[in-house]
Amino acid sequence: MTTDPQRAIQDLYEAYDRREDRLLKDYFELLRFPSISSEPDRTSDMRACADWLARYLKGLGFEVELWEGPGHPAVFARHLGAGPEAPTAIIYNHYDVQPVDPLELWESPPFEPTIRDHAVYARGASDNKGQLFYNLTALRLLLERNGRLPLNVKLCLDGQEEDGSQTLFNLLPGKQKEMAADHLLVVDLGLGSPTFPAVTLGVRGIVTMRLTVTGSNGDLHSGTHGGMAVNPNHALAELLAGLRDASGRVTVAGFYDEVEELSDAERQGLNFRFDARRYQQTFGAEPLGGEKAYPPRESATIRPTLEINGLAGGYAGTGFKTVIPAKAWANLSCRLVPRQDPATIARRVKAHLERHAPAGVRVEVQILEGGGPAVRTRSDSRVVKAAARAYEEVTGAPCHYMLEGGSIPIVPDLARATGAEVVMMGWGIGTDNVHAPNEHFHLDRLKKGCATMARTLEILAEKE
Amino acid sequence: MTTDPQRAIQDLYEAYDRREDRLLKDYFELLRFPSISSEPDRTSDMRACADWLARYLKGLGFEVELWEGPGHPAVFARHLGAGPEAPTAIIYNHYDVQPVDPLELWESPPFEPTIRDHAVYARGASDNKGQLFYNLTALRLLLERNGRLPLNVKLCLDGQEEDGSQTLFNLLPGKQKEMAADHLLVVDLGLGSPTFPAVTLGVRGIVTMRLTVTGSNGDLHSGTHGGMAVNPNHALAELLAGLRDASGRVTVAGFYDEVEELSDAERQGLNFRFDARRYQQTFGAEPLGGEKAYPPRESATIRPTLEINGLAGGYAGTGFKTVIPAKAWANLSCRLVPRQDPATIARRVKAHLERHAPAGVRVEVQILEGGGPAVRTRSDSRVVKAAARAYEEVTGAPCHYMLEGGSIPIVPDLARATGAEVVMMGWGIGTDNVHAPNEHFHLDRLKKGCATMARTLEILAEKE
Repeated sequence: MTTDPQRAIQDLYEAYDRREDRLLKDYFELLRFPSISSEPDRTSDMRACADWLARYLKGLGFEVELWEGPGHPAVFARHLGAGPEAPTAIIYNHYDVQPVDPLELWESPPFEPTIRDHAVYARGASDNKGQLFYNLTALRLLLERNGRLPLNVKLCLDGQEEDGSQTLFNLLPGKQKEMAADHLLVVDLGLGSPTFPAVTLGVRGIVTMRLTVTGSNGDLHSGTHGGMAVNPNHALAELLAGLRDASGRVTVAGFYDEVEELSDAERQGLNFRFDARRYQQTFGAEPLGGEKAYPPRESATIRPTLEINGLAGGYAGTGFKTVIPAKAWANLSCRLVPRQDPATIARRVKAHLERHAPAGVRVEVQILEGGGPAVRTRSDSRVVKAAARAYEEVTGAPCHYMLEGGSIPIVPDLARATGAEVVMMGWGIGTDNVHAPNEHFHLDRLKKGCATMARTLEILAEKE
Repeated sequence: MTTDPQRAIQDLYEAYDRREDRLLKDYFELLRFPSISSEPDRTSDMRACADWLARYLKGLGFEVELWEGPGHPAVFARHLGAGPEAPTAIIYNHYDVQPVDPLELWESPPFEPTIRDHAVYARGASDNKGQLFYNLTALRLLLERNGRLPLNVKLCLDGQEEDGSQTLFNLLPGKQKEMAADHLLVVDLGLGSPTFPAVTLGVRGIVTMRLTVTGSNGDLHSGTHGGMAVNPNHALAELLAGLRDASGRVTVAGFYDEVEELSDAERQGLNFRFDARRYQQTFGAEPLGGEKAYPPRESATIRPTLEINGLAGGYAGTGFKTVIPAKAWANLSCRLVPRQDPATIARRVKAHLERHAPAGVRVEVQILEGGGPAVRTRSDSRVVKAAARAYEEVTGAPCHYMLEGGSIPIVPDLARATGAEVVMMGWGIGTDNVHAPNEHFHLDRLKKGCATMARTLEILAEKE
């Protein structure tokens, strides 16, 4: 085991640089698969991507299985060469990506990776193929340097993280033997900035719903019927507007019942650094969307939210159609904090919407599958401390602990199946445009991510 | 001139029946043109339809011109064989149609006319190719029977009624010589039912707008940013919900300033017959959409409205995208009553929306072209009385006077250009599904519409 961390990192960087061209070629191959899990016609693209990963991991000496379930396959791989006495780490990434619309806003095609200003532009470049690929590279470099890994390593590569993780949700309860590990590393997160390393101690949960408002049995002419027919667009707007009060609080009865304030001790250990001016410069709008009683960064991490992710009704294109539509609808999601049960919260939102249905329209709320509760982890577990130390070695800056507003619904099930303590980490940053046009990932972070993972595994292998 | 009206109608029906097969063949040809004026790629279809009408009218002995303007051409035709001493009637129809989406709700393709239960199903079957075609048929039968028309007849066939009538709006001020007439018959309306004939004394005006709400400079992840970013979908819902109060009144300052109540005398002459139970049976929803202070039929004719014709923002498809969109938008229209100026009302709505812009988003309101003021006509003009008598002859029932909630923005300009008194008439009924899937027109009304127009022209030619 290398004992000088800076020397170890230097070695890794030199090895990385020597083979960078080949690494990027492989990374680009991975990015070229249009592995959009939520689009029905992508089944063969998803499988092609899973097969590519299986071949790649076999090439590294891993034993690989494709786990088949109701959705796209998960890629499971293990390299147990460190022996039964050595600890085992399991790494979670996902190889599926978000849809790419609106396509016209991409400056280069989303599945033709392009380097601009030392960053790779492609759907998935950051979320999560970039983070997956630097992990594969860390494993490759460790194997090439030492001929073995410092501990046993398993990989669980989700094919449906962006679309509910159904395959893993179904299979994990029966895969406890395969998944068993000491340390679970969920590498689908980010840090404050490349010079502000941080380990994530919590992600919010999520539950999603579809709200449909139905008026007449068909579209009506807004001249003849305007003033008679109840317009589902108006009814939808009223229902949606009523979901929050002027202070930004969600008005659904019981929405905050299980929410607890952070204790002083909890708050002490967490970094809520937030630069509102910089936020506005980056995103072009002020961070005024949360509860007025909480600063933006707290409102986006320790408080639950209800967001309208999409709404539609009638003809909203250019040109004009003088219609009163038969239906209008919206996609809603709630982000959840610890102790909030997704099903309970969804039922309360549904009951609220049904109770407030305007006269003359029918309101239906469908609670969608694939949500999950919030996760909070301890800051003093071995795996969290190892990751924090690795970040500090790679960046030279002290590692912070923070909370993330996003959700990885499968994490509680991963923790249960592995029996491991979890760390949530990664090298994503807020300007990567994940889930948006022109997603990108900086080459510098690809390399640092690789070093962070390699060092985390080495630190976990050290004797206590 | 035939003096026995029933005999005259019988003659027309016999002539109609003899050539019904050929008439339907021609009607179907007209319906097959996908003349959707608002869709940019329909230019050649629009022109093909205009050319077909020009050929058809030339075949009847009309002198025909295609009037070119900024939009699709208008077809202008005249048959002045009755001589300079005879009066002149000008008939207005339009040959363009509404878009057809949602296409999947059509039981037969919208541009493949199909007869089911004695009705012709096709986009435009009623609005307005059906009403245009029975007018052409009336002219054909009169010409074939008498070798001439009872008075001079002009036709003005709009190619853009469903999309703002821009060509006619631009050209009419310079076409006063061509358009000059004694009587203007706008045949784009309906009646209460086939056994409840009615002439329309008023249509509402219209003005349309597009509201855009912009938040950040790109779509954001609703996990990371939920609780920080202002969601334009929420801001849109709030703005739209705030446009009406609980009593259904529009909250825009000054919206009702110019609106006058009907005088007792005006109200006396008008029929506001409305069967709420039947409305619900037909359209599947209660008529609760108007101002609570007015019965539905009044709210939809003598009161102005503000409707959300379309709204969109984020991802509203099946599946789910956890996005906070950069933009959300809506198409709005106001129906106007006499003395309301379209531009003034639009400015007030725009000012209201801008003043109520939620913090953190940018609100833009674009006032669209193509609107027009309301029209009310006298019930004692010669042309209104002639049309009413023709309806009574054809149906055997007393003719009523009513108001229509829809709009034909070009009518005031038509009245100005022609110098004529106007009647608004037609054989459309509320269940024709105009502007909606499965538009249709009953064969029986095609024949009765033909008789009504033929008799109206004959009555107008009688010595006073």
